[in-house]
Amino acid sequence: MESEWEIIDYLRRRAGRGGGVRVGIGDDAAVLAGEGRTDWVVTTDLMIEDVHFLRQMQPPRAVGHKALARSLSDIAAMGGVPRYALVALAVPPELASRWVKQFFDGALALARRHRVRLAGGDLSRAGRVIADVQVLGTVEKGKAFLRAGARAGDALFVSGELGLARLGLAVLRTHLGGDEAVLRRAVRAHFYPEPRVALGRALRRFPVSALIDVSDGLSTDLFHLCRASRVGARLAAARIPLPQIPPRVAERLRVVPLELALHGGEDYELLFTLPEAAARRLPARLAGVGLQRIGRIERGRTLLLEDAEGRKKPLVPRGWEHFART
Amino acid sequence: MESEWEIIDYLRRRAGRGGGVRVGIGDDAAVLAGEGRTDWVVTTDLMIEDVHFLRQMQPPRAVGHKALARSLSDIAAMGGVPRYALVALAVPPELASRWVKQFFDGALALARRHRVRLAGGDLSRAGRVIADVQVLGTVEKGKAFLRAGARAGDALFVSGELGLARLGLAVLRTHLGGDEAVLRRAVRAHFYPEPRVALGRALRRFPVSALIDVSDGLSTDLFHLCRASRVGARLAAARIPLPQIPPRVAERLRVVPLELALHGGEDYELLFTLPEAAARRLPARLAGVGLQRIGRIERGRTLLLEDAEGRKKPLVPRGWEHFART
Repeated sequence: MESEWEIIDYLRRRAGRGGGVRVGIGDDAAVLAGEGRTDWVVTTDLMIEDVHFLRQMQPPRAVGHKALARSLSDIAAMGGVPRYALVALAVPPELASRWVKQFFDGALALARRHRVRLAGGDLSRAGRVIADVQVLGTVEKGKAFLRAGARAGDALFVSGELGLARLGLAVLRTHLGGDEAVLRRAVRAHFYPEPRVALGRALRRFPVSALIDVSDGLSTDLFHLCRASRVGARLAAARIPLPQIPPRVAERLRVVPLELALHGGEDYELLFTLPEAAARRLPARLAGVGLQRIGRIERGRTLLLEDAEGRKKPLVPRGWEHFART
Repeated sequence: MESEWEIIDYLRRRAGRGGGVRVGIGDDAAVLAGEGRTDWVVTTDLMIEDVHFLRQMQPPRAVGHKALARSLSDIAAMGGVPRYALVALAVPPELASRWVKQFFDGALALARRHRVRLAGGDLSRAGRVIADVQVLGTVEKGKAFLRAGARAGDALFVSGELGLARLGLAVLRTHLGGDEAVLRRAVRAHFYPEPRVALGRALRRFPVSALIDVSDGLSTDLFHLCRASRVGARLAAARIPLPQIPPRVAERLRVVPLELALHGGEDYELLFTLPEAAARRLPARLAGVGLQRIGRIERGRTLLLEDAEGRKKPLVPRGWEHFART
């Protein structure tokens, strides 16, 4: 299998444009023209056992939570309001119905907090658990945040802490968790990521030029944003908000915090750009989440990582690849 | 795993009602209140390798076609107009990208014929091919066809021929195909089912009281319709439109045409009821598809099958069970 880009470009050519599709294949969600003053934002996200999660490691409530959270995060990345969810779920026939109920309990608890209604779905059997969640949301007509639109000179921001979910996975995999509060937060971030819907809405007051959610990892999602915007970027390594792990803990877990943040994925934070003048008006926290300036958009198509001493090196996207072998 | 009904009832209780959801869990598709004069009709359908199809037997174009056709059929069953599709596809990494392109070629060819736009989706890897297709359509506000609404005395109709798709599967499985045109038609019906969107629209001129698509098999889908409507039904075996197979061919393939029609599934025809007076106005063909009166709705909750001599026996739903072991 070649890269997902080849397939996406093929589909973009074949699917054509227009016909009510304002934003089609290739962004976090599709934008469809509505009848009134709003557009619809729709997204679908697969979550597959042994690809996206291990059933032995993840409680069913967490699987249900995350399956929905991934799609809510896509709506957040468009600056939209999630409204309805459809859940397609396939499970091995030998699985107890308690597992299925707890899966839905996890999804429904998150849905309620976001006032999202479960409107329907599909149930099937399969060799392994497969969940595919669609979320339909609304956004002000013609005003969805897109990956395209970043310009040279724009400031680059990210919300929250990066690498926490991947750190949680390392704790779970190694069974080397300790008492450190950061490790408990990391496991929680891995199981129950919080989609930044309120932040996406709050950012509408600012002239955001491009936005994407950090689901595949900072390096890969920055690459996506820059590719769509036809620009490059320079990241300041020292400014990336990392989980604060005592060095002996990092060593025990065999993790390098900066690497987790750059390539870990599943943080579901928002990565966005806005013009320099507006960047100065942006508060340090918005909708209860910290915002950190981590770099700037540049001409050209290169991604650079700059260390504290000003040394630059190319930043290679090494986050989640959808078709990669594990 | 207990039956899908237990899970669906659990979800119906937990998901609550209202909030813009006009029709929620349990019909062919969900109906969501739109802003203008239309409602949205949305559906999601999983198609999983080794559960719903065998990759060695089904050309990739046919897999793509059927994955979309299943969801289009759900929109047809609501009397809606399909507008947009999202396709989530997971494939084994070793699969050639030619397979993925041909899958989409099949889906896109069907989409074009129905003026449906591919608006987005998700790509992933998995051990086996998984496709989940969502279709968003529109329907006149408050006027979607539902499973509930059939009344004692209503006439029961079905479109097309039943059992053809299952006959096609028997031909493919046994490698015992012959020159008979019906067998070629059967294989085509299995690979490339034609969703009855135009028929669903044409039926809007009639006072249809309940409607469902025959995806799980006549016995099972009639059971679904009657359960939702809280009624029973009597089917006249002799009136069920069967594929005309020479007896020696049926014997060779080890199939009984009536059994295929009752329990085969995947026909994607429409099964519907309307009051007796209106039934007499219904033409024999509508939107290019034959319509056949096959029974009537009765009080009580029993499904009966009546043979040509007037002998009745209980009709047990033996079509597709979503959680059943194969």
